[in-house]
Amino acid sequence: MKFAQLGPVGEEIPVVFDGDTAHDLRGVTARIDGAFLATGLADVQRLLEAGQLPELPGASAMRIGAPIARPSAIVCVGMNYAAHAAESGSAPPEHMVIFNKLPNTIAGPNDVVVVPRDSEKTDWEVELGIVIGKRASYIPSRADAEEYIAGFVLVNDLSERTWQIDISGGQWGKGKSAPGFSPTGPWLVTRDSIDAQNVRLRSSVNGQARQNSSTADMIFSIAHIVHELSQYMVLEPGDLVLTGTPEGVALSGRFPYIAAGDVVELEIEGLGAQRQEYVAYTEVH
Amino acid sequence: MKFAQLGPVGEEIPVVFDGDTAHDLRGVTARIDGAFLATGLADVQRLLEAGQLPELPGASAMRIGAPIARPSAIVCVGMNYAAHAAESGSAPPEHMVIFNKLPNTIAGPNDVVVVPRDSEKTDWEVELGIVIGKRASYIPSRADAEEYIAGFVLVNDLSERTWQIDISGGQWGKGKSAPGFSPTGPWLVTRDSIDAQNVRLRSSVNGQARQNSSTADMIFSIAHIVHELSQYMVLEPGDLVLTGTPEGVALSGRFPYIAAGDVVELEIEGLGAQRQEYVAYTEVH
Repeated sequence: MKFAQLGPVGEEIPVVFDGDTAHDLRGVTARIDGAFLATGLADVQRLLEAGQLPELPGASAMRIGAPIARPSAIVCVGMNYAAHAAESGSAPPEHMVIFNKLPNTIAGPNDVVVVPRDSEKTDWEVELGIVIGKRASYIPSRADAEEYIAGFVLVNDLSERTWQIDISGGQWGKGKSAPGFSPTGPWLVTRDSIDAQNVRLRSSVNGQARQNSSTADMIFSIAHIVHELSQYMVLEPGDLVLTGTPEGVALSGRFPYIAAGDVVELEIEGLGAQRQEYVAYTEVH
Repeated sequence: MKFAQLGPVGEEIPVVFDGDTAHDLRGVTARIDGAFLATGLADVQRLLEAGQLPELPGASAMRIGAPIARPSAIVCVGMNYAAHAAESGSAPPEHMVIFNKLPNTIAGPNDVVVVPRDSEKTDWEVELGIVIGKRASYIPSRADAEEYIAGFVLVNDLSERTWQIDISGGQWGKGKSAPGFSPTGPWLVTRDSIDAQNVRLRSSVNGQARQNSSTADMIFSIAHIVHELSQYMVLEPGDLVLTGTPEGVALSGRFPYIAAGDVVELEIEGLGAQRQEYVAYTEVH
Protein backbone atom coordinates (compact mmCIF):
# COMPACT_ATOMS: atom_id res chain seq x y z
CA MET A 1 0.00 0.00 0.00
CA LYS A 2 0.98 3.61 -0.59
CA PHE A 3 0.03 6.40 1.84
CA ALA A 4 0.30 10.19 1.76
CA GLN A 5 -0.91 13.25 3.68
CA LEU A 6 -2.37 16.02 1.53
CA GLY A 7 -3.41 19.60 2.27
CA PRO A 8 -2.19 22.79 3.96
CA VAL A 9 0.49 22.62 6.68
CA GLY A 10 -1.09 21.35 9.89
CA GLU A 11 -4.34 20.37 8.15
CA GLU A 12 -3.13 17.44 6.06
CA ILE A 13 -5.64 14.69 5.19
CA PRO A 14 -4.35 11.09 5.34
CA VAL A 15 -4.95 9.10 2.14
CA VAL A 16 -4.20 5.70 0.69
CA PHE A 17 -3.73 5.23 -3.06
CA ASP A 18 -5.43 2.75 -5.37
CA GLY A 19 -3.38 3.30 -8.51
CA ASP A 20 -3.42 7.08 -8.92
CA THR A 21 -6.67 7.52 -6.98
CA ALA A 22 -6.37 8.92 -3.44
CA HIS A 23 -8.86 7.55 -0.90
CA ASP A 24 -9.70 9.59 2.20
CA LEU A 25 -8.65 7.87 5.45
CA ARG A 26 -10.21 10.33 7.89
CA GLY A 27 -12.84 7.73 8.77
CA VAL A 28 -10.02 5.46 9.97
CA THR A 29 -7.36 7.79 11.41
CA ALA A 30 -6.65 11.50 11.82
CA ARG A 31 -3.06 11.07 10.63
CA ILE A 32 -0.42 8.53 9.59
CA ASP A 33 1.17 8.20 13.03
CA GLY A 34 2.67 5.48 15.18
CA ALA A 35 -0.64 4.34 16.65
CA PHE A 36 -2.14 3.93 13.18
CA LEU A 37 0.91 2.14 11.77
CA ALA A 38 1.01 -0.23 14.74
CA THR A 39 -2.60 -1.34 14.44
CA GLY A 40 -4.43 0.04 11.39
CA LEU A 41 -2.79 -1.29 8.22
CA ALA A 42 -4.83 -4.50 7.92
CA ASP A 43 -8.09 -2.56 8.34
CA VAL A 44 -7.15 -0.18 5.53
CA GLN A 45 -6.22 -3.07 3.24
CA ARG A 46 -9.62 -4.67 3.87
CA LEU A 47 -11.58 -1.42 3.42
CA LEU A 48 -9.64 -0.56 0.26
CA GLU A 49 -10.29 -3.98 -1.29
CA ALA A 50 -13.97 -3.75 -0.33
CA GLY A 51 -14.26 -0.34 -2.01
CA GLN A 52 -15.38 1.24 1.27
CA LEU A 53 -12.97 4.21 1.36
CA PRO A 54 -14.30 7.39 -0.34
CA GLU A 55 -12.20 9.10 -3.00
CA LEU A 56 -10.70 12.46 -1.97
CA PRO A 57 -11.88 15.04 -4.53
CA GLY A 58 -9.19 17.36 -5.86
CA ALA A 59 -6.36 15.33 -4.33
CA SER A 60 -4.01 15.78 -7.28
CA ALA A 61 -4.06 19.58 -6.84
CA MET A 62 -3.34 19.55 -3.10
CA ARG A 63 -0.04 20.31 -1.38
CA ILE A 64 1.80 17.11 -0.46
CA GLY A 65 2.82 17.00 3.20
CA ALA A 66 5.22 14.55 4.83
CA PRO A 67 3.50 11.13 4.71
CA ILE A 68 4.07 10.55 8.45
CA ALA A 69 3.15 12.57 11.54
CA ARG A 70 5.97 14.04 13.63
CA PRO A 71 7.76 11.01 15.13
CA SER A 72 9.08 10.65 18.68
CA ALA A 73 12.59 10.37 17.25
CA ILE A 74 14.65 10.50 14.05
CA VAL A 75 17.68 8.22 14.25
CA CYS A 76 20.23 8.50 11.45
CA VAL A 77 22.98 6.16 10.28
CA GLY A 78 26.05 7.99 9.00
CA MET A 79 28.69 6.93 6.45
CA ASN A 80 26.66 3.92 5.30
CA TYR A 81 27.89 3.96 1.68
CA ALA A 82 31.63 3.40 1.21
CA ALA A 83 32.09 5.97 -1.58
CA HIS A 84 30.38 8.68 0.53
CA ALA A 85 32.63 7.92 3.49
CA ALA A 86 35.60 8.35 1.16
CA GLU A 87 34.38 11.68 -0.26
CA SER A 88 33.85 12.91 3.33
CA GLY A 89 37.47 12.07 4.17
CA SER A 90 36.70 8.96 6.24
CA ALA A 91 37.35 5.24 6.00
CA PRO A 92 34.26 3.00 5.78
CA PRO A 93 33.02 2.57 9.36
CA GLU A 94 33.83 -0.61 11.24
CA HIS A 95 30.85 0.00 13.53
CA MET A 96 27.49 1.56 12.68
CA VAL A 97 27.65 5.34 13.25
CA ILE A 98 24.46 6.97 14.53
CA PHE A 99 23.23 10.47 15.31
CA ASN A 100 19.87 12.23 15.59
CA LYS A 101 17.83 14.92 13.89
CA LEU A 102 15.12 16.79 15.78
CA PRO A 103 11.60 15.52 14.90
CA ASN A 104 10.41 19.07 14.21
CA THR A 105 12.64 19.22 11.11
CA ILE A 106 10.18 17.12 9.07
CA ALA A 107 8.60 19.01 6.17
CA GLY A 108 6.70 18.25 2.98
CA PRO A 109 8.73 16.90 0.05
CA ASN A 110 8.19 19.98 -2.14
CA ASP A 111 8.00 22.70 0.52
CA VAL A 112 10.26 25.71 0.01
CA VAL A 113 13.40 25.35 2.14
CA VAL A 114 14.91 28.37 3.87
CA VAL A 115 18.71 28.31 3.82
CA PRO A 116 19.43 28.90 7.54
CA ARG A 117 20.64 32.31 8.68
CA ASP A 118 24.42 32.67 8.27
CA SER A 119 24.66 29.25 6.58
CA GLU A 120 27.44 28.90 4.01
CA LYS A 121 27.43 25.13 3.60
CA THR A 122 23.88 23.77 3.25
CA ASP A 123 24.12 20.34 1.62
CA TRP A 124 21.71 17.71 0.26
CA GLU A 125 21.63 13.97 1.07
CA VAL A 126 19.14 11.62 -0.58
CA GLU A 127 18.27 8.79 1.84
CA LEU A 128 16.02 5.81 2.26
CA GLY A 129 13.98 6.28 5.46
CA ILE A 130 12.64 3.35 7.47
CA VAL A 131 9.34 3.97 9.30
CA ILE A 132 8.95 1.79 12.40
CA GLY A 133 5.64 -0.06 12.79
CA LYS A 134 6.06 -1.85 16.11
CA ARG A 135 7.84 -1.04 19.37
CA ALA A 136 11.37 -2.42 18.93
CA SER A 137 13.55 -3.32 21.93
CA TYR A 138 16.20 -6.04 21.86
CA ILE A 139 15.01 -7.61 18.58
CA PRO A 140 16.35 -11.20 18.75
CA SER A 141 18.04 -11.36 15.32
CA ARG A 142 18.42 -9.57 12.00
CA ALA A 143 15.99 -12.06 10.50
CA ASP A 144 13.32 -10.75 12.90
CA ALA A 145 13.86 -7.06 12.05
CA GLU A 146 11.46 -6.88 9.09
CA GLU A 147 8.31 -7.28 11.16
CA TYR A 148 9.18 -4.08 13.06
CA ILE A 149 9.14 -2.03 9.83
CA ALA A 150 5.89 -0.43 8.63
CA GLY A 151 7.33 0.93 5.40
CA PHE A 152 9.73 3.27 3.67
CA VAL A 153 9.97 6.94 2.69
CA LEU A 154 12.26 9.22 0.70
CA VAL A 155 14.05 11.82 2.87
CA ASN A 156 16.45 14.67 2.12
CA ASP A 157 18.78 14.65 5.16
CA LEU A 158 19.81 18.30 4.82
CA SER A 159 22.98 19.33 6.65
CA GLU A 160 24.86 22.55 7.44
CA ARG A 161 28.47 21.40 7.15
CA THR A 162 30.11 24.32 8.98
CA TRP A 163 27.92 23.61 11.98
CA GLN A 164 28.11 19.82 11.62
CA ILE A 165 31.89 19.61 11.23
CA ASP A 166 33.87 22.86 11.51
CA ILE A 167 32.36 24.19 14.78
CA SER A 168 30.85 21.02 16.25
CA GLY A 169 33.66 19.62 18.37
CA GLY A 170 33.11 16.42 16.39
CA GLN A 171 29.43 15.73 17.16
CA TRP A 172 27.37 16.13 14.01
CA GLY A 173 23.95 17.03 15.45
CA LYS A 174 24.59 20.79 15.47
CA GLY A 175 24.32 20.89 11.67
CA LYS A 176 21.41 18.49 11.21
CA SER A 177 18.34 20.12 12.77
CA ALA A 178 17.71 23.53 11.19
CA PRO A 179 14.03 24.27 10.44
CA GLY A 180 12.74 22.29 7.44
CA PHE A 181 15.90 20.17 7.23
CA SER A 182 14.11 16.81 6.73
CA PRO A 183 11.87 17.00 3.63
CA THR A 184 10.00 13.66 3.71
CA GLY A 185 7.83 11.91 1.16
CA PRO A 186 5.84 12.10 -1.03
CA TRP A 187 4.74 8.57 -0.09
CA LEU A 188 4.98 6.03 2.68
CA VAL A 189 5.14 2.66 0.90
CA THR A 190 4.50 -0.39 3.06
CA ARG A 191 7.30 -2.92 3.33
CA ASP A 192 5.51 -5.58 1.28
CA SER A 193 5.16 -3.17 -1.66
CA ILE A 194 8.86 -2.39 -2.28
CA ASP A 195 12.15 -4.28 -2.44
CA ALA A 196 13.76 -1.49 -0.41
CA GLN A 197 17.25 -3.00 -0.28
CA ASN A 198 17.52 -2.88 -4.05
CA VAL A 199 16.25 0.45 -5.40
CA ARG A 200 18.08 3.33 -7.07
CA LEU A 201 18.37 6.71 -5.36
CA ARG A 202 19.30 9.93 -7.14
CA SER A 203 19.65 13.66 -6.54
CA SER A 204 20.26 16.65 -8.77
CA VAL A 205 20.79 20.41 -8.33
CA ASN A 206 19.42 22.79 -10.96
CA GLY A 207 18.97 19.81 -13.28
CA GLN A 208 22.58 18.58 -12.96
CA ALA A 209 23.04 15.07 -11.61
CA ARG A 210 24.66 14.73 -8.18
CA GLN A 211 23.98 11.37 -6.46
CA ASN A 212 23.14 8.17 -8.32
CA SER A 213 23.47 4.91 -6.44
CA SER A 214 21.53 1.91 -5.16
CA THR A 215 20.40 0.93 -1.68
CA ALA A 216 22.08 -2.40 -2.48
CA ASP A 217 25.39 -0.59 -1.81
CA MET A 218 24.68 0.06 1.89
CA ILE A 219 27.43 -1.11 4.24
CA PHE A 220 24.93 -1.97 7.01
CA SER A 221 21.68 -3.38 5.61
CA ILE A 222 18.16 -2.31 6.58
CA ALA A 223 17.74 -5.44 8.71
CA HIS A 224 21.15 -4.90 10.33
CA ILE A 225 20.30 -1.29 11.21
CA VAL A 226 16.91 -1.98 12.80
CA HIS A 227 18.18 -4.99 14.73
CA GLU A 228 21.30 -3.24 16.01
CA LEU A 229 19.54 0.00 16.99
CA SER A 230 17.08 -1.98 19.09
CA GLN A 231 20.00 -3.25 21.23
CA TYR A 232 20.88 0.33 22.23
CA MET A 233 17.49 2.06 22.42
CA VAL A 234 13.75 1.56 22.10
CA LEU A 235 12.29 2.48 18.69
CA GLU A 236 8.62 3.51 18.83
CA PRO A 237 5.94 3.03 16.15
CA GLY A 238 6.11 5.99 13.77
CA ASP A 239 9.82 6.66 14.42
CA LEU A 240 11.96 7.45 11.39
CA VAL A 241 15.35 5.81 10.79
CA LEU A 242 17.55 7.30 8.04
CA THR A 243 19.95 4.87 6.42
CA GLY A 244 22.74 7.12 5.15
CA THR A 245 23.51 8.76 1.83
CA PRO A 246 25.62 7.70 -1.17
CA GLU A 247 28.42 9.78 -2.73
CA GLY A 248 27.76 12.99 -4.63
CA VAL A 249 27.19 15.70 -2.02
CA ALA A 250 28.81 19.13 -1.82
CA LEU A 251 30.96 18.10 1.14
CA SER A 252 33.06 16.15 -1.37
CA GLY A 253 34.40 19.44 -2.76
CA ARG A 254 33.26 18.47 -6.26
CA PHE A 255 30.08 20.63 -6.23
CA PRO A 256 29.03 23.99 -4.76
CA TYR A 257 26.83 24.10 -1.66
CA ILE A 258 23.15 25.06 -1.99
CA ALA A 259 22.48 28.76 -2.65
CA ALA A 260 19.24 30.72 -2.61
CA GLY A 261 17.51 30.23 -5.96
CA ASP A 262 18.70 26.64 -6.37
CA VAL A 263 16.31 23.78 -7.05
CA VAL A 264 17.16 20.37 -5.55
CA GLU A 265 15.42 17.25 -6.85
CA LEU A 266 15.60 13.78 -5.30
CA GLU A 267 14.13 10.44 -6.22
CA ILE A 268 14.07 6.88 -4.95
CA GLU A 269 12.69 4.20 -7.23
CA GLY A 270 9.22 3.25 -5.96
CA LEU A 271 9.10 6.00 -3.32
CA GLY A 272 8.45 9.02 -5.55
CA ALA A 273 10.30 12.29 -6.09
CA GLN A 274 10.95 15.61 -4.28
CA ARG A 275 11.55 19.08 -5.71
CA GLN A 276 12.61 21.89 -3.37
CA GLU A 277 13.24 25.55 -4.12
CA TYR A 278 15.71 27.20 -1.73
CA VAL A 279 15.33 30.79 -0.51
CA ALA A 280 17.51 33.05 1.63
CA TYR A 281 16.69 33.61 5.31
CA THR A 282 16.46 37.33 4.61
CA GLU A 283 13.73 36.73 2.01
CA VAL A 284 11.30 35.36 4.58
CA HIS A 285 12.23 37.09 7.86
CA MET B 1 7.05 27.58 42.00
CA LYS B 2 7.87 23.91 42.32
CA PHE B 3 6.08 21.21 40.28
CA ALA B 4 6.06 17.42 40.32
CA GLN B 5 4.14 14.49 38.84
CA LEU B 6 3.12 11.81 41.33
CA GLY B 7 1.65 8.33 40.95
CA PRO B 8 2.11 5.07 39.02
CA VAL B 9 3.92 5.06 35.66
CA GLY B 10 1.61 6.50 33.01
CA GLU B 11 -0.94 7.71 35.58
CA GLU B 12 1.02 10.52 37.22
CA ILE B 13 -0.91 13.43 38.72
CA PRO B 14 0.55 16.93 38.19
CA VAL B 15 1.02 18.92 41.40
CA VAL B 16 2.41 22.24 42.56
CA PHE B 17 3.93 22.63 46.01
CA ASP B 18 3.15 25.21 48.68
CA GLY B 19 5.93 24.47 51.13
CA ASP B 20 5.69 20.70 51.59
CA THR B 21 2.04 20.53 50.62
CA ALA B 22 1.21 19.14 47.16
CA HIS B 23 -1.77 20.73 45.41
CA ASP B 24 -3.58 18.80 42.68
CA LEU B 25 -3.35 20.48 39.24
CA ARG B 26 -5.71 18.17 37.35
CA GLY B 27 -8.27 20.98 37.24
CA VAL B 28 -5.73 23.04 35.27
CA THR B 29 -3.77 20.53 33.15
CA ALA B 30 -3.50 16.77 32.61
CA ARG B 31 0.31 16.90 32.72
CA ILE B 32 3.31 19.23 32.97
CA ASP B 33 3.90 19.47 29.23
CA GLY B 34 4.94 22.10 26.73
CA ALA B 35 1.46 23.51 26.21
CA PHE B 36 1.03 23.99 29.97
CA LEU B 37 4.48 25.51 30.46
CA ALA B 38 3.94 27.91 27.55
CA THR B 39 0.65 29.28 28.84
CA GLY B 40 -0.36 28.02 32.29
CA LEU B 41 2.20 29.18 34.86
CA ALA B 42 0.58 32.54 35.69
CA ASP B 43 -2.81 30.86 36.22
CA VAL B 44 -1.31 28.39 38.68
CA GLN B 45 0.45 31.17 40.58
CA ARG B 46 -2.86 33.03 40.91
CA LEU B 47 -4.87 29.95 41.93
CA LEU B 48 -2.19 28.90 44.43
CA GLU B 49 -2.12 32.32 46.07
CA ALA B 50 -5.92 32.40 46.16
CA GLY B 51 -6.01 29.00 47.90
CA GLN B 52 -8.10 27.56 45.07
CA LEU B 53 -6.06 24.41 44.35
CA PRO B 54 -7.10 21.32 46.36
CA GLU B 55 -4.50 19.42 48.35
CA LEU B 56 -3.60 15.96 46.98
CA PRO B 57 -4.22 13.44 49.79
CA GLY B 58 -1.45 10.91 50.35
CA ALA B 59 0.99 12.74 48.08
CA SER B 60 4.03 12.06 50.25
CA ALA B 61 3.56 8.29 49.89
CA MET B 62 3.21 8.30 46.11
CA ARG B 63 5.85 7.30 43.54
CA ILE B 64 7.59 10.37 42.11
CA GLY B 65 7.55 10.45 38.31
CA ALA B 66 9.58 12.73 36.07
CA PRO B 67 8.24 16.27 36.61
CA ILE B 68 7.79 16.84 32.86
CA ALA B 69 5.90 14.94 30.17
CA ARG B 70 7.89 13.30 27.39
CA PRO B 71 9.43 16.19 25.42
CA SER B 72 9.72 16.49 21.64
CA ALA B 73 13.52 16.48 22.04
CA ILE B 74 16.36 16.15 24.54
CA VAL B 75 19.38 18.20 23.49
CA CYS B 76 22.60 17.70 25.46
CA VAL B 77 25.73 19.80 25.80
CA GLY B 78 28.89 17.74 26.21
CA MET B 79 32.20 18.57 27.88
CA ASN B 80 30.80 21.71 29.53
CA TYR B 81 32.99 21.54 32.66
CA ALA B 82 36.74 21.83 32.10
CA ALA B 83 37.75 19.20 34.65
CA HIS B 84 35.35 16.65 33.12
CA ALA B 85 36.74 17.27 29.64
CA ALA B 86 40.20 16.60 31.08
CA GLU B 87 39.16 13.35 32.82
CA SER B 88 37.58 12.21 29.52
CA GLY B 89 40.86 12.78 27.70
CA SER B 90 39.79 15.97 25.88
CA ALA B 91 40.76 19.63 25.90
CA PRO B 92 38.02 22.08 26.95
CA PRO B 93 35.86 22.63 23.85
CA GLU B 94 36.37 25.76 21.78
CA HIS B 95 32.82 25.40 20.42
CA MET B 96 29.73 24.09 22.18
CA VAL B 97 29.44 20.31 21.62
CA ILE B 98 25.90 18.94 21.31
CA PHE B 99 24.23 15.55 20.94
CA ASN B 100 20.80 14.05 21.63
CA LYS B 101 19.12 11.51 23.84
CA LEU B 102 15.84 9.86 22.81
CA PRO B 103 12.84 11.39 24.61
CA ASN B 104 11.61 7.94 25.64
CA THR B 105 14.59 7.58 28.01
CA ILE B 106 12.97 9.85 30.61
CA ALA B 107 12.11 8.05 33.88
CA GLY B 108 11.24 8.91 37.46
CA PRO B 109 14.11 10.06 39.70
CA ASN B 110 13.95 7.01 41.97
CA ASP B 111 12.83 4.35 39.50
CA VAL B 112 14.90 1.18 39.39
CA VAL B 113 17.35 1.32 36.47
CA VAL B 114 18.08 -1.80 34.42
CA VAL B 115 21.73 -2.03 33.42
CA PRO B 116 21.34 -2.63 29.65
CA ARG B 117 21.92 -6.10 28.26
CA ASP B 118 25.63 -6.75 27.60
CA SER B 119 26.61 -3.40 29.13
CA GLU B 120 30.00 -3.29 30.82
CA LYS B 121 30.39 0.49 31.18
CA THR B 122 27.20 2.10 32.48
CA ASP B 123 28.15 5.50 33.95
CA TRP B 124 26.40 8.28 35.91
CA GLU B 125 26.39 12.02 35.10
CA VAL B 126 24.63 14.53 37.36
CA GLU B 127 23.35 17.44 35.24
CA LEU B 128 21.30 20.60 35.43
CA GLY B 129 18.43 20.31 32.94
CA ILE B 130 16.81 23.37 31.34
CA VAL B 131 13.10 23.03 30.51
CA ILE B 132 12.03 25.25 27.60
CA GLY B 133 8.90 27.37 28.13
CA LYS B 134 8.50 29.15 24.82
CA ARG B 135 9.25 28.25 21.19
CA ALA B 136 12.86 29.35 20.62
CA SER B 137 14.17 30.11 17.13
CA TYR B 138 16.96 32.61 16.42
CA ILE B 139 16.83 34.23 19.90
CA PRO B 140 18.34 37.72 19.32
CA SER B 141 20.92 37.72 22.14
CA ARG B 142 22.08 35.84 25.25
CA ALA B 143 20.35 38.50 27.34
CA ASP B 144 17.03 37.43 25.78
CA ALA B 145 17.50 33.71 26.50
CA GLU B 146 16.01 33.67 30.00
CA GLU B 147 12.45 34.34 28.88
CA TYR B 148 12.51 31.09 26.84
CA ILE B 149 13.22 29.02 29.99
CA ALA B 150 10.32 27.64 32.05
CA GLY B 151 12.50 26.17 34.78
CA PHE B 152 15.10 23.62 35.80
CA VAL B 153 15.32 19.94 36.71
CA LEU B 154 17.89 17.46 38.01
CA VAL B 155 18.81 14.76 35.46
CA ASN B 156 21.09 11.73 35.53
CA ASP B 157 22.48 11.60 31.96
CA LEU B 158 23.27 7.89 32.04
CA SER B 159 25.73 6.63 29.41
CA GLU B 160 27.05 3.31 28.19
CA ARG B 161 30.69 4.17 27.43
CA THR B 162 31.52 1.15 25.24
CA TRP B 163 28.63 2.06 22.96
CA GLN B 164 29.22 5.83 23.22
CA ILE B 165 32.95 5.75 22.55
CA ASP B 166 34.52 2.37 21.76
CA ILE B 167 32.08 1.18 19.06
CA SER B 168 30.46 4.47 18.02
CA GLY B 169 32.67 5.67 15.19
CA GLY B 170 32.94 8.88 17.21
CA GLN B 171 29.25 9.87 17.48
CA TRP B 172 28.11 9.58 21.10
CA GLY B 173 24.39 8.96 20.66
CA LYS B 174 24.70 5.17 20.51
CA GLY B 175 25.50 5.06 24.24
CA LYS B 176 23.01 7.63 25.46
CA SER B 177 19.52 6.26 24.84
CA ALA B 178 19.08 2.91 26.57
CA PRO B 179 15.72 2.44 28.32
CA GLY B 180 15.47 4.49 31.54
CA PHE B 181 18.72 6.35 30.84
CA SER B 182 17.41 9.82 31.79
CA PRO B 183 16.09 9.77 35.38
CA THR B 184 14.54 13.25 35.79
CA GLY B 185 13.31 15.14 38.84
CA PRO B 186 11.99 15.06 41.50
CA TRP B 187 10.95 18.67 40.85
CA LEU B 188 10.60 21.21 38.10
CA VAL B 189 11.51 24.54 39.72
CA THR B 190 10.54 27.67 37.79
CA ARG B 191 13.35 29.98 36.73
CA ASP B 192 12.41 32.75 39.17
CA SER B 193 12.70 30.32 42.12
CA ILE B 194 16.35 29.26 41.71
CA ASP B 195 19.69 30.89 40.91
CA ALA B 196 20.45 28.01 38.55
CA GLN B 197 23.87 29.25 37.42
CA ASN B 198 25.17 29.07 40.99
CA VAL B 199 24.08 25.83 42.67
CA ARG B 200 26.05 22.80 43.80
CA LEU B 201 25.61 19.43 42.11
CA ARG B 202 26.74 16.14 43.59
CA SER B 203 26.64 12.41 42.96
CA SER B 204 27.60 9.34 44.95
CA VAL B 205 27.70 5.58 44.42
CA ASN B 206 26.94 3.28 47.36
CA GLY B 207 27.38 6.26 49.67
CA GLN B 208 30.84 7.21 48.36
CA ALA B 209 31.17 10.69 46.87
CA ARG B 210 31.80 10.94 43.15
CA GLN B 211 30.92 14.36 41.65
CA ASN B 212 30.89 17.60 43.66
CA SER B 213 30.95 20.84 41.72
CA SER B 214 28.95 23.98 40.98
CA THR B 215 26.97 25.10 37.96
CA ALA B 216 29.07 28.27 38.20
CA ASP B 217 31.90 26.21 36.67
CA MET B 218 30.15 25.67 33.31
CA ILE B 219 32.22 26.66 30.29
CA PHE B 220 29.13 27.73 28.31
CA SER B 221 26.50 29.38 30.54
CA ILE B 222 22.78 28.58 30.60
CA ALA B 223 22.02 31.75 28.62
CA HIS B 224 24.79 30.97 26.13
CA ILE B 225 23.46 27.45 25.56
CA VAL B 226 19.82 28.41 24.97
CA HIS B 227 20.74 31.34 22.74
CA GLU B 228 23.24 29.38 20.65
CA LEU B 229 21.03 26.28 20.24
CA SER B 230 18.24 28.48 18.88
CA GLN B 231 20.53 29.53 16.01
CA TYR B 232 20.83 25.91 14.84
CA MET B 233 17.41 24.45 15.62
CA VAL B 234 13.95 25.23 16.96
CA LEU B 235 13.43 24.38 20.64
CA GLU B 236 9.81 23.64 21.54
CA PRO B 237 8.01 24.29 24.84
CA GLY B 238 8.62 21.32 27.13
CA ASP B 239 11.93 20.36 25.48
CA LEU B 240 14.76 19.37 27.80
CA VAL B 241 18.31 20.74 27.43
CA LEU B 242 21.06 19.06 29.46
CA THR B 243 23.99 21.28 30.34
CA GLY B 244 26.85 18.82 30.82
CA THR B 245 28.39 17.08 33.79
CA PRO B 246 31.33 17.94 36.08
CA GLU B 247 34.28 15.65 36.82
CA GLY B 248 33.94 12.48 38.86
CA VAL B 249 32.46 9.85 36.54
CA ALA B 250 33.68 6.30 35.93
CA LEU B 251 35.00 7.22 32.47
CA SER B 252 37.86 8.97 34.29
CA GLY B 253 39.27 5.57 35.29
CA ARG B 254 39.22 6.59 38.95
CA PHE B 255 36.02 4.67 39.82
CA PRO B 256 34.33 1.42 38.74
CA TYR B 257 31.35 1.50 36.38
CA ILE B 258 27.86 0.81 37.73
CA ALA B 259 27.11 -2.82 38.59
CA ALA B 260 23.85 -4.55 39.46
CA GLY B 261 23.16 -3.95 43.15
CA ASP B 262 24.68 -0.46 43.18
CA VAL B 263 22.80 2.58 44.47
CA VAL B 264 23.46 5.91 42.76
CA GLU B 265 22.39 9.14 44.47
CA LEU B 266 22.40 12.59 42.88
CA GLU B 267 21.50 16.03 44.15
CA ILE B 268 21.36 19.60 42.90
CA GLU B 269 20.87 22.35 45.46
CA GLY B 270 17.28 23.57 45.18
CA LEU B 271 16.23 20.86 42.71
CA GLY B 272 16.00 17.88 45.07
CA ALA B 273 17.65 14.48 45.11
CA GLN B 274 17.51 11.15 43.23
CA ARG B 275 18.23 7.61 44.44
CA GLN B 276 18.38 4.75 41.95
CA GLU B 277 18.90 1.05 42.52
CA TYR B 278 20.48 -0.75 39.56
CA VAL B 279 19.51 -4.29 38.53
CA ALA B 280 20.82 -6.68 35.90
CA TYR B 281 18.98 -7.13 32.60
CA THR B 282 18.65 -10.82 33.37
CA GLU B 283 16.80 -10.05 36.63
CA VAL B 284 13.86 -8.47 34.78
CA HIS B 285 13.71 -10.24 31.40
